[in-house]
Amino acid sequence: MRSSPISSRSNPWFARFRRAIDEHDQEVVIEGPKQVADAIAGGWEAIAIAGETMPERLEAGVTRLSMSPSLLKALSGTVRHQGTFGLFRKPARSLDDVFDRVGIIVVLDGVQDPGNVGTIIRLSAAFEAAGVAVTPDSADPYGPKSVRATSGTLFLLPVAVASREAILEACRRRKLPLYAAAGDGSRQVIPPGPAVVAFGSEGRGVSAELRAAATGVGVPISPTVESLNVAAAAAIILHQAYELRR
Amino acid sequence: MRSSPISSRSNPWFARFRRAIDEHDQEVVIEGPKQVADAIAGGWEAIAIAGETMPERLEAGVTRLSMSPSLLKALSGTVRHQGTFGLFRKPARSLDDVFDRVGIIVVLDGVQDPGNVGTIIRLSAAFEAAGVAVTPDSADPYGPKSVRATSGTLFLLPVAVASREAILEACRRRKLPLYAAAGDGSRQVIPPGPAVVAFGSEGRGVSAELRAAATGVGVPISPTVESLNVAAAAAIILHQAYELRR
Repeated sequence: MRSSPISSRSNPWFARFRRAIDEHDQEVVIEGPKQVADAIAGGWEAIAIAGETMPERLEAGVTRLSMSPSLLKALSGTVRHQGTFGLFRKPARSLDDVFDRVGIIVVLDGVQDPGNVGTIIRLSAAFEAAGVAVTPDSADPYGPKSVRATSGTLFLLPVAVASREAILEACRRRKLPLYAAAGDGSRQVIPPGPAVVAFGSEGRGVSAELRAAATGVGVPISPTVESLNVAAAAAIILHQAYELRR
Repeated sequence: MRSSPISSRSNPWFARFRRAIDEHDQEVVIEGPKQVADAIAGGWEAIAIAGETMPERLEAGVTRLSMSPSLLKALSGTVRHQGTFGLFRKPARSLDDVFDRVGIIVVLDGVQDPGNVGTIIRLSAAFEAAGVAVTPDSADPYGPKSVRATSGTLFLLPVAVASREAILEACRRRKLPLYAAAGDGSRQVIPPGPAVVAFGSEGRGVSAELRAAATGVGVPISPTVESLNVAAAAAIILHQAYELRR
């Protein structure tokens, strides 16, 4: 820990943290002492840690920074911040990292709300999915709102951004059946065995491109209600698939 | 429709809409032409409608207002507003309105995020719950974020704010079994028949007071993941209860 805390917004370290929060294209900021420790345990490469609580084990070469309370507050997306922020190299996960694993592969096809993206990643971890592939028109899984909604589970499974074409090609090459969550009241569930399941945008559902190659899976609901929130549908469908595989 | 639109923030109608959005203690604002029509169809008492699209059927006595685009924007909680806002008398639902109905009664016990409150109301409607009782320390179900998350389902079932004591007393008097969502990995589901199920706060779960009188129900998840989001747990538990009752 340095002797005097960084207190200027023009400090290059502060600017680098801030840029990673806003752009998260090369580097990602993780907030909270437990989340930072989980990211390190999950194999993420730490660049610098700022704040009050330092992780117990920290590799050589990781910069430890002390920051003034007002700068720490300026890094946080929440009203009450948790005092510790980690700057990490953004994990470079390829679609093969996801598809090389066996089980249920979750596809987020144009899911636009970052809270829904993070929540479905958390559900994928909770129900032991193999990994998550996210189309480029979805919210960025490494953005601050998504990271917060994953609640520390982003470090547990591979998450890759990939085009619909690449996802369809990966399904074909590995002969994996593709399912698409549909709001048509179908009772179809994902049968046991390896499979890929796509969840679509809040307004339009799964894209025509993926639907054309997929079998619909659905959750019957009251005829008086139009649809479920995509994260609620994912909770039910991924839970059913988990139960069938246990 | 009046000839010249209201364009001043000091206009009493604008101020009244704004106050209903911020305080929602006596009056509630509903945004969107479809939602406004649904609220009227659901028996809510309209006071005034402002905006571009007027509902086709509107009772005598309801004031129709034209507002400038900048005032309409100032009423909306979203970036792109939907052009129509309804000011309604807040429905006075008692705990008896909820408990007089037969089926699954959902209790929100200190659920603090308004998005979770609205999402669980939407799930309750989707899975045909009898009604929803909300403790006073939960987010207000009639606040704008909750109303938005209900996605037009708030008009489909009774939602009442009530204390834990009143909820426990209602369960006892009507001899209804009480279940509490627990993150203990239990596989217990809600058996068929009328029942009450409580979902707790994001951090602490169901209160000790309700837990003491309840049977735990749970969703087994991976041991590497700490918990599910409360709305995700509600999706799975309410869906299971719905399937057992169909």
